[in-house]
Amino acid sequence: MTEASAPATGGIATRGPVLVIGAGLIGASIGVALTSHGVPVRLRDASPTALALARDVGAGDLEGAEDGEPALVIVAAPPDVTAGLVGAALHTFPTATVTDVASVKSAIRSELEGFATLDLTRYVGSHPMAGRERHGASAADGDLFAGRPWVLTPEPSTSPAALRTVRDLAVDLGASPVEMTAAEHDGAVALVSHLPQLLSSMLAARLVSAPDRALGLAGQGLRDVTRIAASDPRLWAAILVSNAAPVRTALREVRDDVDSLLVALDRAADDGPLAIGAMAGIAGVISAGNDGVARIPGKHGGSRKTYAEVTVLVPDRPGELGRLFTEIGEIGVNIEDFQMEHSPRQKVGMAGVSVLPGVAAALVSDLEERGWRVVVE
Amino acid sequence: MTEASAPATGGIATRGPVLVIGAGLIGASIGVALTSHGVPVRLRDASPTALALARDVGAGDLEGAEDGEPALVIVAAPPDVTAGLVGAALHTFPTATVTDVASVKSAIRSELEGFATLDLTRYVGSHPMAGRERHGASAADGDLFAGRPWVLTPEPSTSPAALRTVRDLAVDLGASPVEMTAAEHDGAVALVSHLPQLLSSMLAARLVSAPDRALGLAGQGLRDVTRIAASDPRLWAAILVSNAAPVRTALREVRDDVDSLLVALDRAADDGPLAIGAMAGIAGVISAGNDGVARIPGKHGGSRKTYAEVTVLVPDRPGELGRLFTEIGEIGVNIEDFQMEHSPRQKVGMAGVSVLPGVAAALVSDLEERGWRVVVE
Repeated sequence: MTEASAPATGGIATRGPVLVIGAGLIGASIGVALTSHGVPVRLRDASPTALALARDVGAGDLEGAEDGEPALVIVAAPPDVTAGLVGAALHTFPTATVTDVASVKSAIRSELEGFATLDLTRYVGSHPMAGRERHGASAADGDLFAGRPWVLTPEPSTSPAALRTVRDLAVDLGASPVEMTAAEHDGAVALVSHLPQLLSSMLAARLVSAPDRALGLAGQGLRDVTRIAASDPRLWAAILVSNAAPVRTALREVRDDVDSLLVALDRAADDGPLAIGAMAGIAGVISAGNDGVARIPGKHGGSRKTYAEVTVLVPDRPGELGRLFTEIGEIGVNIEDFQMEHSPRQKVGMAGVSVLPGVAAALVSDLEERGWRVVVE
Repeated sequence: MTEASAPATGGIATRGPVLVIGAGLIGASIGVALTSHGVPVRLRDASPTALALARDVGAGDLEGAEDGEPALVIVAAPPDVTAGLVGAALHTFPTATVTDVASVKSAIRSELEGFATLDLTRYVGSHPMAGRERHGASAADGDLFAGRPWVLTPEPSTSPAALRTVRDLAVDLGASPVEMTAAEHDGAVALVSHLPQLLSSMLAARLVSAPDRALGLAGQGLRDVTRIAASDPRLWAAILVSNAAPVRTALREVRDDVDSLLVALDRAADDGPLAIGAMAGIAGVISAGNDGVARIPGKHGGSRKTYAEVTVLVPDRPGELGRLFTEIGEIGVNIEDFQMEHSPRQKVGMAGVSVLPGVAAALVSDLEERGWRVVVE
């Protein structure tokens, strides 16, 4: 009943047919990427309209009654339904490798182990660290995984062939496979993804009742800290309840810091800024934050490089930012990083251009010669 | 003893001589801007080396024994020493207008009101909403205030002439003056500046003990939320103890949300994802965050515009980002916003270019024709 494996094309190791269950952003993006490499992809989704949309963006063909057994099944569904779909796929397709892409791993593994008579040696949990603020197949993108980590969570019982199949998928889609235990993955995403989401949301929630005039003073700091607060509540609630234990551990530590800060602030509010322990209590948390943020790896996973930042004032007229970059291109300097800082009320923006320290001085003088208002940081 | 007022140059309303007390980033930046407009500036600082540095970057001349009374004194010192310096200036200079630029206002006002026999009608508290991650006169920048709000906190007793002088200063430096009461200012910055700092720091503090492999999964979300966690602990502790009451109020509300979330997470951790109230408790906080972040004004203080985001994969080779912008310039599309997203491990970055929705499709096809890998969001 198995179709002949599709041959690899263009150095692609993944063999089809591939069945993608769940035609949202991640599933459709995988489908688009594999289809573009010539791998046959079939699509399944509980929603006929989501399915049609995914087909229309080029993610693959609809699953049909005549299809043979897929070589690989990828479950790309919300975390609360993932285990059921993985279990059904293992049951229906007795030789296929099955993976999922949910952002929590232990809960799914436990649920699967609760099912009787499943051949879990063919299952490999995985999690591509990719996404965007928009959801659904309309945002599908075959390049979504390029350059991202893709976590694989094999167990000792996992078949080496299944692990190789899922690792090949990650590599074929341009991602970097990283093996972890499910618990290690869940602890890691609790810290680097789930806790940031909660703190960003809690901060943004405080703005609901803020006066308009207070919001008028918002700067880039507030915008940065709250950007991810625009995320989907239902999806995030499903992720967080499925990773409740590690998130709770991290959030309890935050509560301890909140409580210490409240003690320090109470003292300062009641006894003035010289209150015993107030300065030290607050400075301690800010200082620990300094140490923590310094540990986040820089671009390309290496240590943080130190760039010189050149800040340029850019009038908000059509073409000005384009002209700036055109001229930096003409000057011949490579832009290592870039950040646009908005400026309220006035028609000017600050473009923060990071360059190698050795070229900053020349860039500044060249830009100033061309009439730009520039500051070196 | 008063020097003749310096004439306005280039439409500048501020009359000198101006005495700037405190030669850090803000004081030196004010000095550089006023000096560039031809306004005579004198500098004072407790540190002789800081003072020399400010003079050397063009912020003004050292204060001398022969100086007459300044027309305007600007105290640009940490919040814990500001009131003392303002009081001394009001006492020493019987006709000068005196302002300060500290990021808290009520505590300074109260301290001033505790001094006997000060003529507070000549004092106007103010706070330019500007700064950068680097401190000190070496980062001084005459354009630092361009396009930023500059809060003024006059009292009913403030002399109209003093208020006009400080308002003129803000306008001359390119800022937008905003009048508020001291309490309104302090409540506003507690929400839009001080609370974001604390939450960013508390999140980053959790990374101190995180495994390296967990940090390897960090994405743009974590980087955004923790960017301001690199701020100076001593300065921030001084700011926060001086604004303890409003910050405490906001942080108590965060603690209430943390406690609700911990209840929901406890239920989910103990009874599984279907535990009563777990989903709703978590989704409620994320959803409130959606509402809050939507209230932050967009570019130029207007309502958020909806832009189309075009994501372009940029190889990390010298000149590639410059080439991208050069080509967008050639295509003739205005870039409304830009965000660089880093990609760990691999030599590729994601450039998020925001453009008006009407031009996105043409930009995408033109970029693709030129060989770029592009996604529309």
